[in-house]
Amino acid sequence: MEVRQGMAAESRMETCLLIIFGATGDLTFRKLLPALYQLEKKKELHKGFGVVAVSRKDHTLKEYLQKAKEAVKTHTSEEFQDSIWKRLNKRIQYQSLEFNNEGDYESLRGVLKELDREIGARGNRLFYMATSPKFFGEISKHIQKKDLYSKKRGWKRLMVEKPFGRDLSSARELNEALTEAFKEEEIFRVDHYLMKEMVQNLLMIRAANQIFEPTWNREHIDHVQIISTESEGVGNRGEYYDQAGALRDMVQNHMLQMLALTAVELPGNLIAKNLRKEKIKILQSLIPFKEVSIEDQMVLGQYEGFREEMGVSEKSSTETYAAIRVFLDHPRWLGVPFYLKTGKGLKEKAARIVIQYRLPMGSCCLGETKEIEEPNRLTINIQPQEGVVLSFNTKQPGTLDTIMPVSMDFCQNCLIGMNTPEAYEKLLGDAIKGDQTSFTHWEEVEAAWKWSDTLINWARKYPWMIKSYEKGSRGPEDAPDLVNREPGRKWL
Amino acid sequence: MEVRQGMAAESRMETCLLIIFGATGDLTFRKLLPALYQLEKKKELHKGFGVVAVSRKDHTLKEYLQKAKEAVKTHTSEEFQDSIWKRLNKRIQYQSLEFNNEGDYESLRGVLKELDREIGARGNRLFYMATSPKFFGEISKHIQKKDLYSKKRGWKRLMVEKPFGRDLSSARELNEALTEAFKEEEIFRVDHYLMKEMVQNLLMIRAANQIFEPTWNREHIDHVQIISTESEGVGNRGEYYDQAGALRDMVQNHMLQMLALTAVELPGNLIAKNLRKEKIKILQSLIPFKEVSIEDQMVLGQYEGFREEMGVSEKSSTETYAAIRVFLDHPRWLGVPFYLKTGKGLKEKAARIVIQYRLPMGSCCLGETKEIEEPNRLTINIQPQEGVVLSFNTKQPGTLDTIMPVSMDFCQNCLIGMNTPEAYEKLLGDAIKGDQTSFTHWEEVEAAWKWSDTLINWARKYPWMIKSYEKGSRGPEDAPDLVNREPGRKWL
Repeated sequence: MEVRQGMAAESRMETCLLIIFGATGDLTFRKLLPALYQLEKKKELHKGFGVVAVSRKDHTLKEYLQKAKEAVKTHTSEEFQDSIWKRLNKRIQYQSLEFNNEGDYESLRGVLKELDREIGARGNRLFYMATSPKFFGEISKHIQKKDLYSKKRGWKRLMVEKPFGRDLSSARELNEALTEAFKEEEIFRVDHYLMKEMVQNLLMIRAANQIFEPTWNREHIDHVQIISTESEGVGNRGEYYDQAGALRDMVQNHMLQMLALTAVELPGNLIAKNLRKEKIKILQSLIPFKEVSIEDQMVLGQYEGFREEMGVSEKSSTETYAAIRVFLDHPRWLGVPFYLKTGKGLKEKAARIVIQYRLPMGSCCLGETKEIEEPNRLTINIQPQEGVVLSFNTKQPGTLDTIMPVSMDFCQNCLIGMNTPEAYEKLLGDAIKGDQTSFTHWEEVEAAWKWSDTLINWARKYPWMIKSYEKGSRGPEDAPDLVNREPGRKWL
Repeated sequence: MEVRQGMAAESRMETCLLIIFGATGDLTFRKLLPALYQLEKKKELHKGFGVVAVSRKDHTLKEYLQKAKEAVKTHTSEEFQDSIWKRLNKRIQYQSLEFNNEGDYESLRGVLKELDREIGARGNRLFYMATSPKFFGEISKHIQKKDLYSKKRGWKRLMVEKPFGRDLSSARELNEALTEAFKEEEIFRVDHYLMKEMVQNLLMIRAANQIFEPTWNREHIDHVQIISTESEGVGNRGEYYDQAGALRDMVQNHMLQMLALTAVELPGNLIAKNLRKEKIKILQSLIPFKEVSIEDQMVLGQYEGFREEMGVSEKSSTETYAAIRVFLDHPRWLGVPFYLKTGKGLKEKAARIVIQYRLPMGSCCLGETKEIEEPNRLTINIQPQEGVVLSFNTKQPGTLDTIMPVSMDFCQNCLIGMNTPEAYEKLLGDAIKGDQTSFTHWEEVEAAWKWSDTLINWARKYPWMIKSYEKGSRGPEDAPDLVNREPGRKWL
């Protein structure tokens, strides 16, 4: 059984060399290597698959492997199995390289050729940008210039981590740099939220259930909430975060991607090309904010103590909290508000999408004095819980017409034996297989930046908008609440 | 708290005398007295409420109360509390009466007047027919002729137990007899299924939930199953049952009532008059069977050993099992089959209504090789479980497009402290309050008999249709299965 599973999986996985730039960085140690370890454990890696770890550090292979092993041990929750590591271990080469040194790229080319011949990678190359984003352009240029792939044989693909630019113009610059070496269909822009089980499940829940999709529109839905909050502060990412802020760090990418998947018109066939085309339309339909009523559309905050965090400016006016109300210029969603909320140092660590339905027609006239107060809600819990909760109304037993709201739930991560794979395991797997469905298309990124740029500029232009809030609270108290002020709506 | 609850409840309950004909019968001892005990316990009975127990037996009040107390003790599941019984006890009078003896009715009139004056029942009279149905007409006639109520003061109401006739013509006769003494709005025809918590809940679930009502139609629903099966045989009711059969005993009344509540157009206000008007329309829209293809519409069976039961004829060809497929001539339900199944001596004891939705639009095109095999199903469990189960499709974790059917459920009788009241407690309460919502209108009974008469006649005309089945099985094996032969459908 074990063997057959392995074979079945391997047959879908392709041969290739994975070249990781930034192989001694946090991302590689915390995410990529543990994900590779899991793929190795599940026997999902093809025998023609090898890894070339590239970084500026002057390690020997042995030194690197020692560090890599420690990283996997630390960042794998289950018991570390030496036998699995030994299998993975054998696939890895290490190469030190200065990102602007042409000679180093030539050496790397030699290593790639040699390893490819040895394991039979068939010329396939998957480049992973796990460095600081300032090197993305430079590395991409050298990949092309120094022929790190064959023009005659195999494929080349590029995986790019966020942030993809820090505004529309820098994103365009970066994209131009990358597209000199790679075509759009070769670029895999990572948004790890798209790999989360329940985010991926969202489309299936819509498409595969006759009770949901026919009511998934303005006729039946009152509003949508998209929430992703963290209880911790910025930790050791203060310097980056002070430059970015919640709007860049979360809203422009993850939050808008979740919005897009919630709102997208389901194409007849959920393959990458069709789905991304529809997601682009949604992101292009985001209605721009009106500057005159900005307070009705956005609430920003900064948790107390943020300015004392390591790497953060003493006078920082960076937002660590953002709540946003946005509408779509789209026939399915006209007049339906999408509320986004994200932030750090908040009461709850949670990510979820909540669909609140309109009050039913029965609301006017069930008996004489009864009113329906709780509408139906479909909650897609993304993390830490994974699952679906549907709240609905039933009759209170023993009464004829008293309404009692109750809920039904399906808990995905409660299912025994359901080890939901980590995001990076899936995104490496999808890239090796060449499936772009859960990676963002350039036009999505562009539309998201277009809309977000205005918000970010106004956040800078009106620093008085950034309200202070207590760490561990629900956000700024002295700002109007975008949701609770509406009748029949509250943050969920 | 206890006191306030009592007062609140009492204020809705009216003063009246409940006159039970057949007060030493099974129904009174097993259902009515225990229900009165519960109402007393909950302090829901008005101080101006009294009971006059009437039967042909020559008991003293003391003897009757002794029997009544034993009956309550035996048929109340919780611990018997003497203090509650003492309160109820004081409300009860006993009167012996031959149903055809005019003098006895005159004596009864005296008892009623006396008790009314004593407790302040304000002339209100609630007559309960708990006798054999052959006496219903006679008793009704005497109630009027012997002035067992005042024409000037208070109200009069009549509660009638099933069976309401044994075919259309006898039902009409009975109704004519009753309506000589009582108006339609004074007649409370008991169908205890209508009092079951989840049957009553069905309307609320539809009316109070935006996710259900908009899809409650032929566009979204594939078919409906209404199931009420028992594992036991006929027990000591063999004589009655051999005369009745499953079609009369269950289909004509309970099954069609559940069908009516499932299919009914929800009126703007769910009060009795509106709702019953709509239920009549549904029952009148039942499409009559075609004799030529009767086997495609009805399967009948008799469990092995039925003919050996006490009171059953050795040559009985009475059906103890019936499965029926019926369509409605109604715009909401055109082409949607309603499958009914009922019987005794079957594998499972259960009553439920299942709404099976159509396969969703995504069924054609999720990925390349995947198909949705399980449609959404909403199951309303009526007994012994009470609750709602919704089965839906989700993505199998770790895959991109493998569909996994899962279910969410809300278990009503799992809720702590939710003692759902028994049917008879509610129907006595509703009749005392004058609420006819959950009692059947004559036109409902008439329409149900009209449709059922044909079935019953054909069951007699074609005795070869009655297939034998093993006790404890799922029903007759050598008959075509009305549901399973259809693609994508099976008994649930």
